[in-house]
Amino acid sequence: MPKAVLYGVGVGPGDPELLTLKAVRLLKEVPVIAYPAPMEGPGLARSIVGDLVPSGRIEIALRMEMSLERASANAAYDSGAVDIAKHLDAGSDVAFLCEGDPLLFGSFIYLMERLGESHEIQVVPGVASPMASASAALFPLATQDESVLLVPASLSEEDLLRLIGACETACIFKVGRHLAKIRRVLVQLGRLDRARYVERASHPDQRVLSLDEAIDKGGIYFAMVLVGS
Amino acid sequence: MPKAVLYGVGVGPGDPELLTLKAVRLLKEVPVIAYPAPMEGPGLARSIVGDLVPSGRIEIALRMEMSLERASANAAYDSGAVDIAKHLDAGSDVAFLCEGDPLLFGSFIYLMERLGESHEIQVVPGVASPMASASAALFPLATQDESVLLVPASLSEEDLLRLIGACETACIFKVGRHLAKIRRVLVQLGRLDRARYVERASHPDQRVLSLDEAIDKGGIYFAMVLVGS
Repeated sequence: MPKAVLYGVGVGPGDPELLTLKAVRLLKEVPVIAYPAPMEGPGLARSIVGDLVPSGRIEIALRMEMSLERASANAAYDSGAVDIAKHLDAGSDVAFLCEGDPLLFGSFIYLMERLGESHEIQVVPGVASPMASASAALFPLATQDESVLLVPASLSEEDLLRLIGACETACIFKVGRHLAKIRRVLVQLGRLDRARYVERASHPDQRVLSLDEAIDKGGIYFAMVLVGS
Repeated sequence: MPKAVLYGVGVGPGDPELLTLKAVRLLKEVPVIAYPAPMEGPGLARSIVGDLVPSGRIEIALRMEMSLERASANAAYDSGAVDIAKHLDAGSDVAFLCEGDPLLFGSFIYLMERLGESHEIQVVPGVASPMASASAALFPLATQDESVLLVPASLSEEDLLRLIGACETACIFKVGRHLAKIRRVLVQLGRLDRARYVERASHPDQRVLSLDEAIDKGGIYFAMVLVGS
């Protein structure tokens, strides 16, 4: 019997039309589907694929508190990895769904840490949020000799200032409650007017705002700030 | 008559199965397909989509010398933009194909510069080369508070040292003849053993090598070096 494969499958930023053909094929072929989810409800990754998963599939939801607190997530990955390994050891392939791309801030990385030594792993890349946000805002990320920084908003003001200041373009992840700090950094860099706030890129309720409009209306976690030079 | 749309369509890193459903749909619906190409032959973007373009479509190849020399490319974008605008003004949508993502080192940016003010533009994001390379190498790009640098290998040794040194992960683009310089930078940073060279990610002849193996065998332009910490 060939060894079963654990696939990390990127399902893109939200629009189901941004799934790849390969992701759609695997959803039809693989008997076990797993995904991260909040304590109740399907979660974003499972919602994106909707009815592309045929009925009758085994589904494993790794349920965790969707907060910055790691203990709940670690426990969910620990027990999820045990469940997934049982299916792999019985010869069934498993597809683990990730919003965006599995290896860029993707929860699949935590499963690779737990199962990468003992099981065969393959990754199907997906459309990642910086590219989806740039498309929404018609925002060129880089040409020629330019460099791009992908950086989480949770860093300190000093670190953000130093890193963003070094690159022509920055894509700031998970902005949520960090908008005021981001604004201070961009004012210091003289780049506030080069920034766009992009919320829920590719979703039907996608919004593209200036940073000050976003601060007025309130930012959400699933948003990104793109900064040009 | 509704205004015709110029679509920038990311066709992903090489494997036709990494096209999105949206890209495939547009290839079927849009009457005019344009793409960058070398002086002879179809070029990579057109090759990736193969026979997903129905027969009888109008095709516009923007032919240019595939070198670092910009004059040939600028002339091709100038005359290509004129051709494309004629179709748009006559009411026909046009899809411009880009390898990877249209806004990350994508040639679509040069068409946006020429046609963005006068015509309606929409961008369909694609699977970009850092994610495809990371998938090939099973290389986690970032978790938690980590940052990722996307940087062209053409920068000076000093700039590469400073930028790569500031981030947990670096994805070095267009490595080709710059491998010896990249090696010197990584030795200085003590991160040579954390680097993977990925050639033609997602193509049938994809290769993942250590940097020294790549230097022995010779690097190509369509390759990326991923650097962890």
